[in-house]
Amino acid sequence: MKAILHREKSGVDGLVYSAAEDKHPGYGEVKVKLIAAGLNHRDLFVINDRNAGDRPLIPGSDGAGIVTEIGEGVSPDLLNLEVALNPTLNWKKADSLPEDLQIIGSPSDGTFADFIIVPAENAVAKPFHLTWEEAAVLGLSALTAYRALFTRGGLKAGQHVVIPGIGGGVATIALQMAKAAGARVSVSSRSEHKLEMARRLGADFCFESGGSWKALFEETRADLVLDSIGPATFPNYFDVLKPDGRIVSFGASSGDSVELPLRALFFPQLSVIGTSMGSSEEFHAMLRFVAEHNLKPVVHKVFPMRDAVQAFAYMKEGRQFGNLTLMNDDKA
Amino acid sequence: MKAILHREKSGVDGLVYSAAEDKHPGYGEVKVKLIAAGLNHRDLFVINDRNAGDRPLIPGSDGAGIVTEIGEGVSPDLLNLEVALNPTLNWKKADSLPEDLQIIGSPSDGTFADFIIVPAENAVAKPFHLTWEEAAVLGLSALTAYRALFTRGGLKAGQHVVIPGIGGGVATIALQMAKAAGARVSVSSRSEHKLEMARRLGADFCFESGGSWKALFEETRADLVLDSIGPATFPNYFDVLKPDGRIVSFGASSGDSVELPLRALFFPQLSVIGTSMGSSEEFHAMLRFVAEHNLKPVVHKVFPMRDAVQAFAYMKEGRQFGNLTLMNDDKA
Repeated sequence: MKAILHREKSGVDGLVYSAAEDKHPGYGEVKVKLIAAGLNHRDLFVINDRNAGDRPLIPGSDGAGIVTEIGEGVSPDLLNLEVALNPTLNWKKADSLPEDLQIIGSPSDGTFADFIIVPAENAVAKPFHLTWEEAAVLGLSALTAYRALFTRGGLKAGQHVVIPGIGGGVATIALQMAKAAGARVSVSSRSEHKLEMARRLGADFCFESGGSWKALFEETRADLVLDSIGPATFPNYFDVLKPDGRIVSFGASSGDSVELPLRALFFPQLSVIGTSMGSSEEFHAMLRFVAEHNLKPVVHKVFPMRDAVQAFAYMKEGRQFGNLTLMNDDKA
Repeated sequence: MKAILHREKSGVDGLVYSAAEDKHPGYGEVKVKLIAAGLNHRDLFVINDRNAGDRPLIPGSDGAGIVTEIGEGVSPDLLNLEVALNPTLNWKKADSLPEDLQIIGSPSDGTFADFIIVPAENAVAKPFHLTWEEAAVLGLSALTAYRALFTRGGLKAGQHVVIPGIGGGVATIALQMAKAAGARVSVSSRSEHKLEMARRLGADFCFESGGSWKALFEETRADLVLDSIGPATFPNYFDVLKPDGRIVSFGASSGDSVELPLRALFFPQLSVIGTSMGSSEEFHAMLRFVAEHNLKPVVHKVFPMRDAVQAFAYMKEGRQFGNLTLMNDDKA
């Protein structure tokens, strides 16, 4: 089969589109012919973290396709099923985080390929209303958003959530999910274009970030902030949250370390709640939610699989609103 | 009546034991003859925060006594009832934190007096197994500890909680409650004497704080840290918590600001959860828990009410293990 392989050099320079070994599923596994794969910032972190001597790796955590072969112990019902892949391995229940949580695409081979072998439970029926490009980008971002909003953030209808830095995959689907759940949604961005796109997706209140948020929120304090930014915006959250409000943190794009003012945390009884990915239970719940509310993740641009390097370069520029998809040759 | 009044000067120097106005309960209120009152660090913060021109205030949030008079609209069953006071006003349900949360003892008059007028729902039947000195110190510390451990911290039997800086009222009753709930409890202190006292109360693991905790916890990682210290110990918590672990924060004795490493928070899905006091619902649950498990708060020393200034000075030295009680003259 053909695949995007990462080898020899660290970072994007180590990517090549070439022949890779075609494998068969083992016990409890299935082989999926990938129609489309989704690109995430995680893929970039993975290839940047690798060293020259490491074994070649196929990156990619997200994908959708058709089950073409099943291993022993797998129900024959899965054969020929159209599936979206749950990128999280070894994590069944939402409240039972495993010590050895792993994600497809490092250390195991990922989705930027013609085929992938995954545990049967990670191949889940694709929602009918989604195209291949849409189903392929849902995995990591929608799973992260679902757990962040509902399991960890406890968002309920009528509450108010702030999503700073709208535009990325998680933030965009989180906006759609929060609106579908009956919440009020405020978003910020430095880009007027992204704010306009968010407005079209249903955002109730859009504001340009930079400077203090105090004045902006006098009448609409928030129950929840979904933070993937960190230090650049973190201090503002304490000015806009209601008592008992939550900051759910899943990213740190502006730096790792923030200053936490303890009295401003414990007197109004705020929480800072870390989250990352999600469980199999939540992946199923997320697909049901997406289907029930007819949500479609925003696909900003589709690249042929062989042009993965260009897709990575495009993602690094950070201008997209929504997700980037890689399509296998015969479909792109 | 006689009372400890705070007037004219800020801080402890403004305290006098003198005559104060005797009042009658209004609609929905009761008058309680105070047998004993509990001293808290909050009382010190309150009097240090007051200015020369402020009206005289009776400080004190905690107390126990007998209902001697009831206002209109109050059940006659409350008359002559022996009660412990819930120090939190206007907060009924655990998950409905009010915007206007207030505590007895500022801005309203408190418990360092012969009598106090409180809303009838704040006078709750005293558990039979407690002495007056014990019942009087339970309020703020046991309520804070109960909410911190169970409502906010989600502590369950078999889990492991760390209580840094054992010795204060909240930490000490929290140790007793956590043991009663079937948890493993580790405590730290700079005082070998306090560690020995904690061992006698059932602490499973005691260690001298100072330096890195990494080596200390290799085999017994924690589900929960109950933090009232802040920056002096905060960085250690990330070395000893399990994935999905919680830091519940209710104090900042070593400073207000801590550095929060976001990736060390969100990859293992940790949380930092602020808490303060507790609701009426939790006050009742706490009293039931204390009665069911026959828990007795540690009373370190009893002072006559008129010697409140000496009691404040003693508390500031920080050498006590457990609580300080003020007893009204005829009982001390």
